[in-house]
Amino acid sequence: MAEKLILGVDIGSTKIALSLWTAEGKKLEARRFPTLPGGLKENLGQIVALGRELAAGKRLFSIGVSGGGPVDPRRGVILDIPNSPGWKEAPVGEELSRAFSVPAAVENDANAGAVAEWRFGAGRGARDLAFLTFSTGIGAGLILDGTLYRGFRFLAGEVGHQVIRDQGAVCGCGRRGCLEAYASGAGMARRLAELRPANPSLPADAKGLIEQARRGDRAALQVLEEVVHALAHGIANLVFILNPQRVILGTIAVHAGELLLAPLRQEVERRLWPSLWEGLEILPAALGEELGDHAAFAVAPGE
Amino acid sequence: MAEKLILGVDIGSTKIALSLWTAEGKKLEARRFPTLPGGLKENLGQIVALGRELAAGKRLFSIGVSGGGPVDPRRGVILDIPNSPGWKEAPVGEELSRAFSVPAAVENDANAGAVAEWRFGAGRGARDLAFLTFSTGIGAGLILDGTLYRGFRFLAGEVGHQVIRDQGAVCGCGRRGCLEAYASGAGMARRLAELRPANPSLPADAKGLIEQARRGDRAALQVLEEVVHALAHGIANLVFILNPQRVILGTIAVHAGELLLAPLRQEVERRLWPSLWEGLEILPAALGEELGDHAAFAVAPGE
Repeated sequence: MAEKLILGVDIGSTKIALSLWTAEGKKLEARRFPTLPGGLKENLGQIVALGRELAAGKRLFSIGVSGGGPVDPRRGVILDIPNSPGWKEAPVGEELSRAFSVPAAVENDANAGAVAEWRFGAGRGARDLAFLTFSTGIGAGLILDGTLYRGFRFLAGEVGHQVIRDQGAVCGCGRRGCLEAYASGAGMARRLAELRPANPSLPADAKGLIEQARRGDRAALQVLEEVVHALAHGIANLVFILNPQRVILGTIAVHAGELLLAPLRQEVERRLWPSLWEGLEILPAALGEELGDHAAFAVAPGE
Repeated sequence: MAEKLILGVDIGSTKIALSLWTAEGKKLEARRFPTLPGGLKENLGQIVALGRELAAGKRLFSIGVSGGGPVDPRRGVILDIPNSPGWKEAPVGEELSRAFSVPAAVENDANAGAVAEWRFGAGRGARDLAFLTFSTGIGAGLILDGTLYRGFRFLAGEVGHQVIRDQGAVCGCGRRGCLEAYASGAGMARRLAELRPANPSLPADAKGLIEQARRGDRAALQVLEEVVHALAHGIANLVFILNPQRVILGTIAVHAGELLLAPLRQEVERRLWPSLWEGLEILPAALGEELGDHAAFAVAPGE
C-alpha cells in the first residue's frame, strides 16, 4: 500500500512554494513559482498543477497551508496578504481540499512557523514558547500549554505592536512607538535613514547594519545596541505576561547570531525578575531557509 | 447518601477565610480569622479546626486553596506570601489533604480569581480572558483556550510588570516604569504624594481619589486620567499579544465603575487596531466581596 503523504503550500506575496512530505516529516520534493498578481483565482491553477505533479502516483493524506497574512483557520480562509491584492477572503482550504479530495488546514505564517520550530526546530520539547518572526515586521506565534494559541479572533501574537514608547516613532501600522518601529527590518532602516546624514558610512538596511557591526564599526554597533534595547524591552514584557520556557527568534536574529543574541540575553536578564529569567532560553530559529516548507507541512491535519 | 461538598480556603496576609460549598457552587457556610504570624505552622491548627466545624457530619469531596502569593500548583505548595513571613515553601495542599483525607489543589489568588470570574462571574461563556486584580499591585490570571494558563514556572500573568515607560517611576518590585508603578493603588498613592505639595486638596489614596473625582474635582480627575492612560497602554499591549475576548478588572476598577471604565474603553479602542477591538469587552469583576471564597472553591479538584 502506498505511503500516506502530506502536501505543504507556503503562500507569500512574492513566491508560492509547494513541498511533499512523508507523515514522519521527511521532505521528498519541492517546487516553487513567483506569485502571480490577482490573488487565489490567478494562482490556484498553478498550485494545483504543481501539487498534482508532486503527488502523481502517490497517496495524498492531507494539505497544510501557511499564508503570509491573517487567516481564519476555522474556515480555511486567507483574509489578506499585505501588498498582494486579490487575496482578500481567499478560500484556499476549500479549493485545495476539493481539488485533491483530502482535508486541508490553513494558518498564518507566524503561527505555522511557531508550530514548525516547536515540532522540528529550536522549540522541540518545550511546552510554552514564543516564536518571533523578525524581518520587515515583527510577528509571533505562541505555543502555550503544548498547543498553538490563536486568540479570540485568531489575531494573537502581535507582539511587535506592543507600544514600548508612548508617542514614539511612527510604525508601519500607523500607530506610534510600537516595538516593530524600533526593532524590525523596517524599523532599523528608518533609524539608519535618520542617522545617515550625520554618519554617511552607515548602511541602508538591517543586513548591511549587521555586516558593518560585525566588522566592529562603532556607529553600526551603536544602532544595533538601540535595537537590542528595544527588543529586550518587548521580550521582557512578553515574558512577564506569559512566562515561556523559550523565546525563539527568526530571520534577522539568525543572520546576526551571537552579535545580537548575546547582548540581548544580558539585557533581557537585567529587565526580568530572577524567577522569570531562570531556565528561560532565548534561541535563534533552527529551520532557516527550510522554515516556510516546514511551516506548511507542520499545520497539515494529522491522523 | 450525603451530598459531596467542597471546602474553600482563602489564605491572605491579613485573614484566612474558609467556606463550604455544594459541588454545584452554592455557598453553605463561611468562617474567617485574622492570619496569625508564623506562617502555615501557626495557622494550620485553626484552619483544620474551622474546616472540621464546617464539615461536621457532612461528606467532604475536595479542598481548594487560594494563596496570596506565588504557589507551585503541581506540588500544592505556597512559595511565599508577601509581608507574611513563615509561608515560604508551605505544603498547604499536602497538610490539608492529610487532615481531611480528600484531594486538595492550590493556586495563587490571581489565577484562582480568574477561574472564579470565568466560571461564576463576568467571564462566563468566554474562552479567552484576562482577569486583572487591581489593588495595591496589579496581577492577572489568564484563561486561554478555555483553560487556566500558568506558564513554564507558574509565573504567567505578571501583567503589571510590563514596562510602559523606560526609566520611569520606581515600582514596588524595584524596577522602573512598570504599569503597576502608575496604575495600581500603590502607584496612585505615589503619584498623589508627588502632587499634593502643589495641590493640598488631593487625597492620599486610590479610594479618596475616586471619591473626589466622582465629585467632579478637576485635580483628581486629572490624576485619574493619567491612571487611565497608563492602564490603557498596558491593556492594549496585552490585547495585541493575546487577543482575548474579555478583560475583567477587579477591586479598584469595580469601586470606580464607569468613571474609570468609560474613558478606559475609549483609550484602549484608540490604541488598538479595529480588528482587535471588535468584540472585545472590558468589564468590571462581578463577584465583588465574594471573590476570595469563590476563588478558593473554583480551583478545588473536580470529579
